[in-house]
Order: sequence, then structure tokens, then C-alpha cells
Amino acid sequence: MKGSSRDIRTANRYRLVRQAIAESPVSRPRLAAATGLSLATVATLVGELLDQGMLIDAGFEDSGGGRPRGLLAVNPRGGALIGVEVAETHVHVEVVDLALRVLARAHEELRRGDHEPPRVAGRIAAAVSAAASRAAAEPRVLGAGISVPGMVDREGAVSVFAADWGWHDVPLLGLLSERVPYRLYLDTPLRACLVAELWFGAARGRDDAVVVSLGSGVGAGLALGGTPYRGVSNSAGEWGHTTLVLDGRPCHCGRRGCVESYVGAPGIMRNLRETSPDSPMLAPGDQAATVARLARGYVEGDPVARQVLRTTAGYLGAALADLVNLLNPEIIVLTGWVARRLGPPLLELAREALARYALRGPLAATELVLSPLPANPVSLGAATFALEGALASLGRPGTAR
Amino acid sequence: MKGSSRDIRTANRYRLVRQAIAESPVSRPRLAAATGLSLATVATLVGELLDQGMLIDAGFEDSGGGRPRGLLAVNPRGGALIGVEVAETHVHVEVVDLALRVLARAHEELRRGDHEPPRVAGRIAAAVSAAASRAAAEPRVLGAGISVPGMVDREGAVSVFAADWGWHDVPLLGLLSERVPYRLYLDTPLRACLVAELWFGAARGRDDAVVVSLGSGVGAGLALGGTPYRGVSNSAGEWGHTTLVLDGRPCHCGRRGCVESYVGAPGIMRNLRETSPDSPMLAPGDQAATVARLARGYVEGDPVARQVLRTTAGYLGAALADLVNLLNPEIIVLTGWVARRLGPPLLELAREALARYALRGPLAATELVLSPLPANPVSLGAATFALEGALASLGRPGTAR
Repeated sequence: MKGSSRDIRTANRYRLVRQAIAESPVSRPRLAAATGLSLATVATLVGELLDQGMLIDAGFEDSGGGRPRGLLAVNPRGGALIGVEVAETHVHVEVVDLALRVLARAHEELRRGDHEPPRVAGRIAAAVSAAASRAAAEPRVLGAGISVPGMVDREGAVSVFAADWGWHDVPLLGLLSERVPYRLYLDTPLRACLVAELWFGAARGRDDAVVVSLGSGVGAGLALGGTPYRGVSNSAGEWGHTTLVLDGRPCHCGRRGCVESYVGAPGIMRNLRETSPDSPMLAPGDQAATVARLARGYVEGDPVARQVLRTTAGYLGAALADLVNLLNPEIIVLTGWVARRLGPPLLELAREALARYALRGPLAATELVLSPLPANPVSLGAATFALEGALASLGRPGTAR
Repeated sequence: MKGSSRDIRTANRYRLVRQAIAESPVSRPRLAAATGLSLATVATLVGELLDQGMLIDAGFEDSGGGRPRGLLAVNPRGGALIGVEVAETHVHVEVVDLALRVLARAHEELRRGDHEPPRVAGRIAAAVSAAASRAAAEPRVLGAGISVPGMVDREGAVSVFAADWGWHDVPLLGLLSERVPYRLYLDTPLRACLVAELWFGAARGRDDAVVVSLGSGVGAGLALGGTPYRGVSNSAGEWGHTTLVLDGRPCHCGRRGCVESYVGAPGIMRNLRETSPDSPMLAPGDQAATVARLARGYVEGDPVARQVLRTTAGYLGAALADLVNLLNPEIIVLTGWVARRLGPPLLELAREALARYALRGPLAATELVLSPLPANPVSLGAATFALEGALASLGRPGTAR
């Protein structure tokens, strides 16, 4: 409800372009029907986007004898977007066109213990530059979105949780602005996964959606009223650090009993150790291998794997019920590498547990699904930060964030 | 971000009238400065509200030699609002003027076991009629807001949790429409407390606020982006039924370990029994007396009372930390009769516990305060539903909800 008419125009552009990406080629009446916008609003927005070269005319549709309807498509050559995933161990960059097809990639390793902010900024800049030069024949770059783990405040200062980084209020946006010649948009992986689901995934067109990310860490991106909810200092979504068991397992955040310590990858390894301390599925120090072996074991009917998935899904269902009861969302989307690896068995068991823990009313209004996006959505989501930024700045003098 | 320009106009009217109620008499430039609206928008909205008789001219302010500035005030006689609190044992009605001064009251007892929906609707209608006739010399009634315990869906069907009511999807709004000759606005006590804080209390002017209600039941009203967040089926806010201790104490909702079973009045009685089973502060079956004795005992330095408050505040702090970590609000307001009764000692102990359980970043961005509203805010909040409804329907043909 807060917001100016500029915010509304921006939100309407998002809706329209989302729909155009999902359905190209598409007619103006169809865009109006699918987005709930008036035909007049659609005509105005489409005109603006045609002027910018972000949409193009794409022939006519057969209208069964009536006047033929013009079709529109997203113009892949209307601009390039750069999406950057910064993780503890690497920087991954993708350059995509406006149809979100990957034009070029680049990858830089980050060495342990080499986390001086200017050096990390230099690595990121080098990877962006390498990817952009590989896509050199392509259209102008509209911006670069960057996902960094930890907390990002509204001014682009970053605090990273990773134990050995020791970052606190690092002015990363400033350091990058000196090294990268594009408009920059900085946010967290949680926000990147959320935006990817809102634009291309299961949350598209949903008003109140929660995107739950399960990996080594866990968190929940909140899209309330169709738009990301950030909180007063941009840190909303730390569901992984809400209490599931008061004074329970120690969590790496220093608290005890956090959701993350039961359903994050290290928590799942502990669930396995508590079920079967000497299980050959345990790959000490290797979360990915352990989770993969559990997934395989489950499919093969291994009783320990089955028990560990049931236990994990029980914790997950209880923690998801907190989101259902507090936020009454229309949909919860499970994403992240743990959710992808454990897949449908985890989903089914989590649905059963959720039904035990959630209140009947909000439970009936909620769907729980796996992300339909094919791969790691973080760099895609980061590229989408840049697309949103470009759409938000249409028609006003540009300023880099 | 979702929302039409009509929604924005409505939200701007709310902001302006809130400010006018808080500051009457007040100048247009001051309203613009305090609300962040442009002078032109303020002028348009003020014109509309003057036409409706909701604001009146109130003389001039000395501007130190410049042109005198016109002052505006809320017109108490611009309309009456009816606020109805339906509780398990009674119906309480207040008629207030636009300055929110109480013009008349009425009270009806509800007998245990006498919860047939048409009879309850009849009791509510009788109480509304009695109160309205006592305020008969007063201006026309703009609407009646009604708070009912339980869940209220967007069509006005009500399910009540109270064990002996047995209400499920009761079409209360329809039953009342046949009996009450005013526009009706139906919602929950949680929402009433939230709206009262947004308009008149500690959440006024805050973007992201949580109003935590502590009574026999507990819940959290969420105001995100300055406006109540309802969820997809209007049941958001069931913080009382999120998990604090997995598989912990049984809760009357049928689950275990809910926040409510640790910090609601029955939970506090259990905290006392677990601390001192034979304590003379225990008034079996009388929550209000027990909580009052604990409050007195604390002030007098009774070690059991001190321990019980520390224990309760520890649970409360952990559960509030979940709200801080997940939602990153600007302010949390404690309301409800338990919060009022235990007051500053509970607040201080809860702040200490919150600091132990919340993440550093969002903790630093949050205030925890007691509600500054003087008495039970439920009927005031319900009357505010009617005020909001009247403001939302300005300038369009009226339809009762």
C-alpha cells in the first residue's frame, strides 16, 4: 500500500515483462488478461518497451476472421544482463540476453584465507570482465546483479557470515563501482532465489509466496503482496535462525535450536549420525556426497536413509508450519541444492509433516512445491536484479545504484 | 507494490487523517511535512475531507509576520463510528466520534453454551442498537467495526476457536447484515489491536511493525510496508501457534510446543506451577488473578514471582527473536491484558532475553515497547475498521461490505 505512482508503474512493467518472457509471442489483449492490467495501461507500457527495444513486433495472430492481432516478443538483442554469484569458494558469472538465454560464462576460484575485500572485489571484477568480453558481439549491458552471502544493507555494505571471511560492514558496492563499468545491484542469494522464482518459477503470479532455500545454510525469501519483502534493514528472511527446539542443538550462528541446525546440510549429517553413527553414507566433511548418498539410499529402500529423510522432513515440516501459521502464504517453494538433491521424496514427507504441524485454515490455503527451475538459480536471480533495475529506471535519468 | 492508484489514494487519506487526529489543529504544510505527501496532494485530500465534513477549518496559525496559515481540525461531529468487541463471555460496544472520543457504550453478556450463531448475532445487534440510541443526538453513523475471536475469512465467514462455541464457517457477516443497519466491517481482535496501534499507538508512522498481543491467547498483528498484512486467506499472524519447543507442552490447538502454551496466561500459570507447585499466587481457574498476583509479587521482591517472570520473559524473548530474525521489523509493540498487567518488568526482562536470541543485525534495527494506548484497544480498533472503510469509500458509490 505504501508507494508512489512511480512504484506502481514499475510493478506493472515487471508484471508485463514477466508475462511476455513466459509467453512470447503474445498479443496485447492476452497480456492484459494475464496480468490484470487494463488494455490502455498495457498499450502504454508496451509502447515504452518497444521504444527501448526491449520488446519487438512479432507478426500477427490468426483471430478467426476478425482483425488480425499484433504479436509482441521479448527482444533477445534488446540488452544483456550480467548475473554474479559470489560464494565462499568461487565467483560464478553468467551473461544472459533479455530472453534469459546464457550468452557467456566465467568462473574464478576464491582461495581460503584470501578474503581481503579489495582482493575479492578485484576477483569479481575480473570474472565480470572475462564474461562480458566473451559476449562482446552482443547488445549493450543493462546492468550487473551480484549475489553475496551474508547480510547486505540498503547502502550496499556487506557483512558475511562465513567464519573465515571476517567481513563486517564492508563497502562492497563502492569497491565494485570503481572496478566494474556497469550499473550494479547487490543483494543476497536468498533474494536472488526469490526473484528467480517470482520471474521464472513457481511463485510467478502469486501474491504471497515464500521461497525456502535449503543448502548448507537455510533461509526463506518472502514475497508478500507480489513483491519482495525486505524488512527495515534488508535482512528479513532469516527463518534458518528461528527457534525450532528451545535450547536445542548448537548452531554456527552462536544460538541454539535454530531451524538451520536441523534441516541444513550439516544438520542432516547430524540426523544421520544420530540415526546410525557408523553409517557408510556418512562422508565426513563432505556435505554434498552425504546428501547424495542419502538420496540414493532412499530410492534403493535403505532403512537408515528412509529414517533420516523422515526425521529431516519432520523437522522441516514443523519449521514450514511456522511460516504457514505466521504468514498464511499461497505457496511455499523449496529450492537450494539440498532440496534439489533430495527432491520428491523429501517433498512428500515434508507435506505429511506440514499437515501434522500447521493450522487447518492456513494449511488448506497453501501449496508446497519443489522449484521448477532447472539449475542453480542464484546467478539467474542476480541477472534479474539488473533486469528489474533497468525496468525501474525506464524513463528517468539513470543513476547507478 | 501491488495495488491500484485507488489503493494509493486510500493509503494517503489514512496517513493524512491519522496525522490530523494526532495533531489537530494542524496546517497543510505541517501535514505535508509529517506525512511525506506533496503539498498539492495534501490540498486535494484536505478539500475532499472538508467537503465530507470530516475536517473543519480551525482558524489561523501565527506565522511570524508572513501570510497566516489556515489550520485544520478533525470534525468530531463529522460522523460517528461504532466499535464492537465480541469475546467468549460478552459483547462490548463503543460509539465514538471522529476525534475518537467515546459517546456511548453498551454491554451484553453471552451465556456459556448459548452460542447459536443467530442468537449471538441477535445479541450483537441488540448491543449495537442500545449504544447507538444512547448516542442518538450525535452525527450519522459511518459504519460499525466488529472484532470476533477466531478466524474471519474475506467473505465474512467466521470460525471460532473457543472450545464450546463450535463455530465453523459461520456466515456471521450475513447474519449481522440482516440485523444491523450500518456498513459492517468484520475482523479479528488481533487485527483490531494492530489497527489501533497503527492509528493511535506506537506503530504510527512506522513501516514494518509487529503488534504482539498477550492474553489468554497470543498472536502477532503484522503491518508490513505500513499496512496490515493479511495473508492469502486472512489468517496471517498466528505466531502463538508457531513452534517454540518441538514436541513440547500440549497446546489447546492440538499441537505441541506452541509459543502460546509458554507465554499465554495459561502458560504463565504453568510456569508458576513448575516453579512452585503450591504457590499461594496460584488462583486455580482464574488467570487474571494469578497474573495480577505475580505482578504484585514481582514488585514486592517475591523470589518465586521474580523467577516466573524471568522464565516467562525468556520464552517470550526467544519467540520474539523469531519475529525479529524472520521479519526484521522496525518496532514490536506488546499489547493485551497480560502485557499491560506485567508491564515494565516483563518488558525489561523480555528485552534482555531478546538480545540473547536475536541476530545482531536485525536486533539493532528493532525497538521493543509496551503499547502506549490506555485501555483495551479492541473496540477502538474495531471502530477504526469503520473509519478506514469510510475513508476508503470516499468518492465512490457506497456498498456495505
